[in-house]
Amino acid sequence: MSGKPIAPGGTVGILGGGQLGRMLASAAAEMGLHTHIYCPDENAPAAEVAAQYTRAEYEDEAALTRFAESVDAVTYEFENVPAETARILSAHGIVRPGPLALATAQDRIVEKNFMQANGILTAPFADITDEASLRNAVENIGTPSVLKTRRFGYDGKGQAKIMAPEDAIAAWDEIGRAPAILEGFVSFEREISVIVARGENGETAAYDPVENIHKNHILDRTLAPAALPEAVAGEACAIAARIAAELDYVGVMGVEMFLLPEAGAEQRLLVNEIAPRVHNSGHWTMDACAVGQFEQHMRAVCGWPLGHPQRHSDAVMTNLIGDEADGWKKLAAEPGTAIHLYGKAEARPGRKMGHTTKLYPLGKRPPVTSS
Amino acid sequence: MSGKPIAPGGTVGILGGGQLGRMLASAAAEMGLHTHIYCPDENAPAAEVAAQYTRAEYEDEAALTRFAESVDAVTYEFENVPAETARILSAHGIVRPGPLALATAQDRIVEKNFMQANGILTAPFADITDEASLRNAVENIGTPSVLKTRRFGYDGKGQAKIMAPEDAIAAWDEIGRAPAILEGFVSFEREISVIVARGENGETAAYDPVENIHKNHILDRTLAPAALPEAVAGEACAIAARIAAELDYVGVMGVEMFLLPEAGAEQRLLVNEIAPRVHNSGHWTMDACAVGQFEQHMRAVCGWPLGHPQRHSDAVMTNLIGDEADGWKKLAAEPGTAIHLYGKAEARPGRKMGHTTKLYPLGKRPPVTSS
Repeated sequence: MSGKPIAPGGTVGILGGGQLGRMLASAAAEMGLHTHIYCPDENAPAAEVAAQYTRAEYEDEAALTRFAESVDAVTYEFENVPAETARILSAHGIVRPGPLALATAQDRIVEKNFMQANGILTAPFADITDEASLRNAVENIGTPSVLKTRRFGYDGKGQAKIMAPEDAIAAWDEIGRAPAILEGFVSFEREISVIVARGENGETAAYDPVENIHKNHILDRTLAPAALPEAVAGEACAIAARIAAELDYVGVMGVEMFLLPEAGAEQRLLVNEIAPRVHNSGHWTMDACAVGQFEQHMRAVCGWPLGHPQRHSDAVMTNLIGDEADGWKKLAAEPGTAIHLYGKAEARPGRKMGHTTKLYPLGKRPPVTSS
Repeated sequence: MSGKPIAPGGTVGILGGGQLGRMLASAAAEMGLHTHIYCPDENAPAAEVAAQYTRAEYEDEAALTRFAESVDAVTYEFENVPAETARILSAHGIVRPGPLALATAQDRIVEKNFMQANGILTAPFADITDEASLRNAVENIGTPSVLKTRRFGYDGKGQAKIMAPEDAIAAWDEIGRAPAILEGFVSFEREISVIVARGENGETAAYDPVENIHKNHILDRTLAPAALPEAVAGEACAIAARIAAELDYVGVMGVEMFLLPEAGAEQRLLVNEIAPRVHNSGHWTMDACAVGQFEQHMRAVCGWPLGHPQRHSDAVMTNLIGDEADGWKKLAAEPGTAIHLYGKAEARPGRKMGHTTKLYPLGKRPPVTSS
C-alpha cells in the first residue's frame, strides 16, 4: 500500500467479531468501505453489519489465507491475536497495527521494558518466573503489590493482590503459577487514558485525556474530558504520541495512565498499559466528535487523512454491563443521551452489552466523583 | 404490537435498499435491533449492513409474505411503495408509517387536498385530467406555473414549467400527458423543511427547521438551523406536528415548506410536499444531535420513547452528487466534518453518493447564501 490509500469501495478485514469489531465495521460502512469479519464465534455481533463473515479458528491457516487474500488490509479488535496468526496474515498482505505493537501489548513484561527503554514512567515491576524470583521481587518492591499474568489478562482477570509478603505464594497459586509480573501498588489519584491515532505518514492525533472510573475491575464510566491542568493533559497526549511513534504504530491505540497526587510528584503520569486497538474509554468519541475512534482507526488503517480529534461536546460514557442493558427503555428516554446496544443475545454477568453517552455543552460536564 | 415495544433483539424489515435504508439499518444495529432489507436491486447499499436481505420484486406476494413473517414490523425508505405491496404486508403484520400516509404522499392532488382540508396553506393548484382542465387551470392560476405528474416525481423529474398560456399543451406533452397537477408559481424567499417524528402514543418531536438549497433540482445543502424568527420556526414545527397527527403517523416524516417574504404575507409558510420517511434534509441530525433521524424513525416504528430533538451543534450538510464523492480524501481532511459515503458502486450523474456534515458551535453557523 505504502502511500496509496484504500479508497471507498475497498475492503478491510477485521479479526474478532465482538462489539469493537461491530463498531469498526459500522464506521467503515459510513466511509463507503466493505468489511470482512473473521472470528471463531457463532452469533458474532460484528458479523451482521459486515459485508462478509468467515467463521473459523485463528489457527486455521487455509481460512486465514483466503481471508487475507479477500481484503485490502487486516486489522483487529483485540490484542491477543496469536503471533502465528499475525505472521500468516502478514505474509499475504498488510496487517495494521503491526507486529511490534502486538508483541509489546501482549506481554506485560515486554510492555514495561518498552516503556522503561523509552524513558516513560511505570509502576515498579519485576519479572516472576519461579518462587525465588517472586520472593525476591516482593522484598524489593514491597507490599501491597499486584501479581498479574504476563499475558491474556483483562477486566481484572489474571490478577491477585499481595497484601503481605507471606501471601505471595498463595497469590501466585491463584493465577495458576503462570509467568507473571509483580507490580508495586501505586497510590494514584485517578486513572486517565488517551486515545491516540497515528497515520501511515507518521501524523498523530490524540483525543483529549479522559478519566475512567471502574466498578468490579470493569470500566464503568468515562468522563470526557478529564479535569486536568493543561500541562498535564498535554503531557499525557505527548506520552501517547511518543509510544505510538516508537512502535511505528498505524491505527488507534488506548493508553491507560495513572495520575499521581500533585503533592510530592515531580512527574504525575505513569503508564499502566496500552491497548493496540480501539478502546472502551474512547467510545464517547462516537457521539462527541465529528470523527470518532472507530472511524479514526479505519482512516489510519486505510491511509486516509486522520480526523481532527476536537470534540464538540463534553461527555460521560457509561457501560451497560450484564442486565443493566435491560433498562434500555428508560435509558433511551434520557435527553441528550445516545444509546448503543451491541446485539449480544445473552446478558451474562460482567458482559459488556452496550453503553450510553450523555452529552454536555463544552465545559459543562458535571463533576462526577469516583465514589 | 399496540403498546408493547419491539425490544433489542427484535427485527425490523425495511423496504428499499438505498442509502436511506442503509442508514436506517445502521441506526437499528446501534439499538441492538436486527434488520431485514427487501428490495429488487442487485448491489443494494443497505444489504451489507443488515442481518438479512431478500432480493425480490415488490409484486412478489410469496416473497413479501415470507418477509413480513420474518420481522416484527415493516418500514420503508421511499414513498412510492405500491399500494398492493403495502396491503399484502399489512395483512401479515405491522407496517409503519401506515397506509394513509402513503396514499397521501404518493399523489400530489390527494396531498394538496389533505392540506387544504386541514387548513394548511399550499400553492394554488388544480387537477389536470385533460386538455380542457389544463386550459381552465392555466386561466385560473395564471403563469408562470408548474405542471407536475401526480405520482412518482422526485428531484425535479416529472415537472415542466409553463411560462405563458400557449406553452401549456407542450408542457403536458413533456411529462407524457400523465394525470397531473398544475401549481401556481410561488415567489418564496427560501425553502425550509421540518423533520418531525411521531410515536405510537401520539407524542411528537420536531428537529429545528432547516433551510434547503437546491442545485439542478437536487438538494445541494441543508443549513441547520434555518435563520428564522422564533415565531415562524415554532409555526413550522407546529404545522409538521399537525400533519403527522392528522395522518395518525408513526415514524419520521419530512415536511418541505416555502417561506414567503415578510412584506405582505399574513402567514409566511406554505407546505410544498411531505415525505413519509426519513429525509435528505434531516441527514445533519446524525452528527449534530444525540439521536439522529434514522434512529428516531426506528424508535417510533418500534414503540421506543422518542429521542429529544435538541441539537448540540449547528451544521451544514452538503450532498455529494455523482463524481463529487471522488473528492473524499480532501473532504475527509476538513476539521469538524463528518463524511458519509453510501457504498454505491457506480457514480452516475445526479446520483447521491454521500454527504458531509460540517459542525459549528451553536449559534456560529456562517450565513450561507442561496447563490
